[in-house]
Amino acid sequence: MPSRKELANAIRVLSMDAVEKAKSGHPGAPMGMADIAEVLWNDSLKHNPANPKWADRDRFVLSNGHGSMLIYALLHLSGYDISMDDIRNFRQLHSKTPGHPEYGITPGVETTTGPLGQGIATAVGMAMAERLMAQQFNRPGYDVVDHATYVFLGDGCMMEGISHEACSLAGTLGLGKLTAFYDDNGISIDGEIAGWFADDTPARFEAYGWHVVRNVDGHDGEAIAAAFKAARAVPGKPSLICCKTRIGQGAPTKAGSHNCHGSPPGAAEIAAAREGMNWPHPPFEIPADIYAGWDARPRGTAAEAAWNDLFARYRAAHPELAAEFERRMAGDLPADWQAGVAAALAATDGAKETLATRIASRNALNAVAPLLPEMIGGSADLTGSVGTWHKTSKLVTPGDWSGNYISYGVREFAMGAIMNGMALHGGFLPYAGTFLIFSDYAKNAIRLSALMGARVVWVLTHDSIGVGEDGPTHQPVEQLAGLRLTPNVQVWRPCDTVETLSAWKAAAECATGPTCISLTRQDVPFVERTAEQRANIMRGGYVLRDCAGTPEAIIMATGSEVQLALAAADVLAAKGRKVRVVSMPSSTQFDRQDAAYRESVLPSAVRARVAVEAATVDGWWKYLGLDGKAVGMTGFGESAPGKVLFEYFGITTEKVIEAVESLI
Amino acid sequence: MPSRKELANAIRVLSMDAVEKAKSGHPGAPMGMADIAEVLWNDSLKHNPANPKWADRDRFVLSNGHGSMLIYALLHLSGYDISMDDIRNFRQLHSKTPGHPEYGITPGVETTTGPLGQGIATAVGMAMAERLMAQQFNRPGYDVVDHATYVFLGDGCMMEGISHEACSLAGTLGLGKLTAFYDDNGISIDGEIAGWFADDTPARFEAYGWHVVRNVDGHDGEAIAAAFKAARAVPGKPSLICCKTRIGQGAPTKAGSHNCHGSPPGAAEIAAAREGMNWPHPPFEIPADIYAGWDARPRGTAAEAAWNDLFARYRAAHPELAAEFERRMAGDLPADWQAGVAAALAATDGAKETLATRIASRNALNAVAPLLPEMIGGSADLTGSVGTWHKTSKLVTPGDWSGNYISYGVREFAMGAIMNGMALHGGFLPYAGTFLIFSDYAKNAIRLSALMGARVVWVLTHDSIGVGEDGPTHQPVEQLAGLRLTPNVQVWRPCDTVETLSAWKAAAECATGPTCISLTRQDVPFVERTAEQRANIMRGGYVLRDCAGTPEAIIMATGSEVQLALAAADVLAAKGRKVRVVSMPSSTQFDRQDAAYRESVLPSAVRARVAVEAATVDGWWKYLGLDGKAVGMTGFGESAPGKVLFEYFGITTEKVIEAVESLI
Repeated sequence: MPSRKELANAIRVLSMDAVEKAKSGHPGAPMGMADIAEVLWNDSLKHNPANPKWADRDRFVLSNGHGSMLIYALLHLSGYDISMDDIRNFRQLHSKTPGHPEYGITPGVETTTGPLGQGIATAVGMAMAERLMAQQFNRPGYDVVDHATYVFLGDGCMMEGISHEACSLAGTLGLGKLTAFYDDNGISIDGEIAGWFADDTPARFEAYGWHVVRNVDGHDGEAIAAAFKAARAVPGKPSLICCKTRIGQGAPTKAGSHNCHGSPPGAAEIAAAREGMNWPHPPFEIPADIYAGWDARPRGTAAEAAWNDLFARYRAAHPELAAEFERRMAGDLPADWQAGVAAALAATDGAKETLATRIASRNALNAVAPLLPEMIGGSADLTGSVGTWHKTSKLVTPGDWSGNYISYGVREFAMGAIMNGMALHGGFLPYAGTFLIFSDYAKNAIRLSALMGARVVWVLTHDSIGVGEDGPTHQPVEQLAGLRLTPNVQVWRPCDTVETLSAWKAAAECATGPTCISLTRQDVPFVERTAEQRANIMRGGYVLRDCAGTPEAIIMATGSEVQLALAAADVLAAKGRKVRVVSMPSSTQFDRQDAAYRESVLPSAVRARVAVEAATVDGWWKYLGLDGKAVGMTGFGESAPGKVLFEYFGITTEKVIEAVESLI
Repeated sequence: MPSRKELANAIRVLSMDAVEKAKSGHPGAPMGMADIAEVLWNDSLKHNPANPKWADRDRFVLSNGHGSMLIYALLHLSGYDISMDDIRNFRQLHSKTPGHPEYGITPGVETTTGPLGQGIATAVGMAMAERLMAQQFNRPGYDVVDHATYVFLGDGCMMEGISHEACSLAGTLGLGKLTAFYDDNGISIDGEIAGWFADDTPARFEAYGWHVVRNVDGHDGEAIAAAFKAARAVPGKPSLICCKTRIGQGAPTKAGSHNCHGSPPGAAEIAAAREGMNWPHPPFEIPADIYAGWDARPRGTAAEAAWNDLFARYRAAHPELAAEFERRMAGDLPADWQAGVAAALAATDGAKETLATRIASRNALNAVAPLLPEMIGGSADLTGSVGTWHKTSKLVTPGDWSGNYISYGVREFAMGAIMNGMALHGGFLPYAGTFLIFSDYAKNAIRLSALMGARVVWVLTHDSIGVGEDGPTHQPVEQLAGLRLTPNVQVWRPCDTVETLSAWKAAAECATGPTCISLTRQDVPFVERTAEQRANIMRGGYVLRDCAGTPEAIIMATGSEVQLALAAADVLAAKGRKVRVVSMPSSTQFDRQDAAYRESVLPSAVRARVAVEAATVDGWWKYLGLDGKAVGMTGFGESAPGKVLFEYFGITTEKVIEAVESLI
């Protein structure tokens, strides 16, 4: 049986060889963390390489994702479907081993990491999801949900602000099954960190309510195992195990220096490292006894079989719960979803209410949340303002996990990453609210949702100068266009109660990525629609008011400005003008429609086009062309009552009419 | 002489009355922090209401900016040019008292706050600027730079991740003249914070290396004064004074509850508050003795006079230093700037180097930094990669402030806010680098630079799929278009050495806002230009290659894709096609040119237009119209060598030719 050190050295040589072959990558972190990984994966990690999607597996997150060769080596060695050819193909097009770990590309990779700090926050979300699922589904004698979440993180993650947000919340909530291993190597890209990062990190985490194991020798397997045992002995708090390591451990001249962080070691260094490690095997060859020492398949298959047995008995005792568990983990919508939401849409259409769309959104939640017990809500400390609390909301508290609502605190970025973690864990449809302007704080988490195809919903209210008195710091201008630019983000900006509920329907049904719903602070009138128009809302853009024959002009609008477009069309119609109004609640969805539909809404021949939206207008030119005009914002807002501002910035019916008349 | 409590109550009634009249605003924070503010402003703050721009004033930052009535009351009472009518006009269009404090609108407001956490980070930047200016300009017997930075912050700021980033760095650097007052009222918008924020904040800040004064009764003036004295006694560390307060202190039924956070108290509550405070005076009336107790003008005028005297003696002893100090505080460029940069441009043009623009940018810094001693550089732990370290760079360390370069650590958001603080303090032109993708992390700080008109420069490298193997987490796609959307952000994406140096020239000369320079990881060829073309670079877009007569088609491009446009034009010219190539290093600058110039570059009649940029193309339609075509990205990148990716995503000369030929 190989020693711990020999097993860990397999990670080191694979990392060096793969980075060297790719002439690109980060050998230092995998080499430094190899011993910690060896202990965790070989002693404790509950997983089955034959089924990376086993529901009750432990989750492992490499928050310092640039050390991707660590996870690829672990997956390969322990028996996942990652071949040595895949390792050889490190960082090549369409390989299973991209530069940073990517969810959906590599079996066993639980989340995409690389943008620092987000891995630990996503792991907090996974641990929360585990705790919530356990609360909802476990029954006496049937702990069908009972797994741990493990994170590796380095100094970079520790410096990023999101680590504060997420770890503070994790401490407050007492996430006892979350264990983080801190790769404390004292080095970041600029060199020795003492000049820019001198935190007493253990004290910081104790201040968050974590259990901290200090001063562990990260290259001593038994010390790591003992620290892990100590961490497990404190079940009510998340644990941080602080491992002192040398970056690039095993590289004879470059270890301990930032020179081994992000570049190939070079042939001489690798040869000397092999000699120093007494590793005589050629590149990309692992001896059979090392493979045997790492092979997690027998243990994993047995563990999953035992769980399958437990779940079979659970199914017998609690058939409905078991079916519901399987539905939720699969991410399927309930059988009664379509009927339920159709009924809610009919009722909303019938009620004809004038409401702020943030209130319409709360009402929509009142309708859809009872249909979707997988919804887990929350807000970054703006619950009352953003309408995320619905009739069946119940707050999750440190002592009571029976709720379905998280007060995230003023932590937008962590909220986004935590939602990603809950979505990736499975069993949940996370949604959460803040003001649209503060999507800025969370932008890269939204981007990662989109990249991973994670279904999360952002409720983004106070979506224009309609915010009013709070002024330009709180009035979004460029955010709406900015979110629409991000690939695979669904953006909705509904104009009334029916479009708002439709946006929620689209969000719940979008299994492949995040949805941002942009909502007004101020009231907007209800709009009458035909059944066909109601159906077409789901296509993102549709003709809301038409004229006889070919239109002379098209006015397109979203959200609170649709009323201006309709009023302008009325005036123009009274003057004998043929004007079409297109409501465009989701240009991202409209762009996905077939060319014939898009042409039917926006005929190429009609070049007199006006867009009205109380935001930066730059995103509209793709529909307006060089001959169109936009009514919207060209700079920042001001502090004044919202109605005053619409007048002041010229976002009015009169200005829309003027723009149309200038074109026809 | 009125008591401390009576003086503080003046803030309370003004805050209640102003919020009530505006029917909008946040009375809770000003009422809760009134006693702390009274002590700081009346006992210690060094300032002169008659000259809010006095160079050696203490800086005061209200990080929890929603409590804006606190600062307006303080400014009014202490004698700034804020009249009672201004207070009455709270939150009205173009008043001096907008909803959140805005830099440039209100005399005495040092920075725009409201987006939580950024105020404390900006204050860290101000304190760093003070320390650096003192190092550079003070001489024995002449401490012409010697002022403190004070911050008020609440639970929201404490929860935001940026507070971790900034306060960790402040502790490492030992910013002893920074004092933060923590308004620890236990309440945030969602209610009592214990359920979502249970940090031991004093322990957290001690872990950062701060000096912490715990458990101060924030409504006991003498206790606050004693705590402040204790803080001053520890000069080598930043201080956090933890004040236990009641939100809305003085409001008889709403104090201590989130109900008084963000809405008008109501007439009955205000009347009862007046009674409880024994404040018989009507709204917007302050008795003369209260005004007298607050009046900071005599003390301020004397303090500034003493400093002016010191500075006069300094000028006599060190005339060149004094002149340089005044130049730098005024934000003027040096007299030899134009000549120096022109010489550098000529040399760069003559060298004709093929370089990655990130390297060209480093070379540009080598040329301009010696001309501009106000440059203070840095990077979020990517110094080697982003080329922000130039020949005369010297690292600032905790013990040595003689440098001009900050290793910010992996803290992009704080880096942005700290740069804002240094720019606002005066005396500096801050620049700093990270990968373009991570501008996402700092987006709202860049937005605040733009809103405030702060001159800071972002060096944003690795600006496309040219990043290569690091993959989609590190390849910007939507960031370039997103930054261009933000009002008042100058965005440059130069194509070679000459355009890169021109971008730096534009950045230094842009006194009214931030500049983002987007730079390649990979080499790009030098482009030959006429003198006129070189001059036109500064206009943001110009004809780089033209044809005889009216063009049949225009190809526009930026950065690394200009070479594709030129190559395509060569092929098309050889086929007898009349094609113009427009280089558009700064569309934001081009959009500011007069209509005649823009028409001369992009004649309206030429509708066969192709844009090529290795990024989301959505921003280009305003130049392309409905008849143009874009060659760029429509989704996320991939992990593979950069050259492979340009082929894979079809961003090639051939695809540009194909697009042009499909249009003509």
